[in-house]
Amino acid sequence: MQELRERIVADGEVIGRDVLKVDSFLNHQIDPAFIQRMGREIAGRFAGEGVTKVLTVEASGIAVAAAVGLALGVPVVFAKKKQAVTQQGDLYSAEIFSFTRRESVHITVAPKYLRPEDVVLIVDDFLAHGEALSGLVKIVRQSGAKLAGAGIVIEKRFQRGGEALRAEGIRIESLAVIESMKAGVITFG
Amino acid sequence: MQELRERIVADGEVIGRDVLKVDSFLNHQIDPAFIQRMGREIAGRFAGEGVTKVLTVEASGIAVAAAVGLALGVPVVFAKKKQAVTQQGDLYSAEIFSFTRRESVHITVAPKYLRPEDVVLIVDDFLAHGEALSGLVKIVRQSGAKLAGAGIVIEKRFQRGGEALRAEGIRIESLAVIESMKAGVITFG
Repeated sequence: MQELRERIVADGEVIGRDVLKVDSFLNHQIDPAFIQRMGREIAGRFAGEGVTKVLTVEASGIAVAAAVGLALGVPVVFAKKKQAVTQQGDLYSAEIFSFTRRESVHITVAPKYLRPEDVVLIVDDFLAHGEALSGLVKIVRQSGAKLAGAGIVIEKRFQRGGEALRAEGIRIESLAVIESMKAGVITFG
Repeated sequence: MQELRERIVADGEVIGRDVLKVDSFLNHQIDPAFIQRMGREIAGRFAGEGVTKVLTVEASGIAVAAAVGLALGVPVVFAKKKQAVTQQGDLYSAEIFSFTRRESVHITVAPKYLRPEDVVLIVDDFLAHGEALSGLVKIVRQSGAKLAGAGIVIEKRFQRGGEALRAEGIRIESLAVIESMKAGVITFG
């Protein structure tokens, strides 16, 4: 998606060898109209797949996932990080390691919101090492639902998180693919 | 907002004396089209206030705030819970206590996304004890921006969080106001 690549170049900040901050339009400040366009683009790539539910994980994925859900006309479920007092009973769950925050997080989804008859499209803001996406795939499998694939805003392919998942046959569509960020220079795939 | 009151009655779960779960359309699963309608309703109530930025806190507030920002044509900033590795430098911050999670959380906003010339509309999903809203008001004051007010989806007025803030002259608009949940029966104001 050309507009996204341009925004990454204009506003993205490369920190060290592998962290990309896009806080101005995605991860801290959101550009709502741009998020809608990205949501429609992801929805379009999975049109005709019979998607009945969009699944993401809090927090940065929520706005994009909501835009995808709006475009497809289906509900959006966001996995919660850590079990709150208001969530009880058996939950689908996975452990994910955040390289950005350097900690493991427990993510959960209540079974009533993912049913075996659902066709699920996973949506997330970043795909790097693939930890969050793998966790969400695990949760879809626990539910018995069918996985249509994953729609990602920015994939940092050099961190290879998509490789193993694609090798398993999971369709992953990324709106921008970064092949390298060497010396602070972003190279798209 | 009549549609919201009906959804709360149909789908809300009252737990104990003061917890209301609306996981089916707001806090775990999102109904994206409904969220858009609520966002437009909040935006309409603050039309003409010259709002330049919507402020919320992750995670449940993000979808509604994005819908408000889309309707007003302004960016949305979400305060982050806890400082991540990718956030550095001086930050506006506040401590908020979550009665639902029974823990204190540190929320932060990077100064570049809230400027003294901004007119800020705070948006959140719930107003109960007022902890999150007070924290966000503090952050707006640290930034020197003007506060237009707060747009809330569900206010549980019996927990009185809005009282002190309204007494300070802050305009709070809530789409549904719950006066009591005694014996599991939801009474609207």
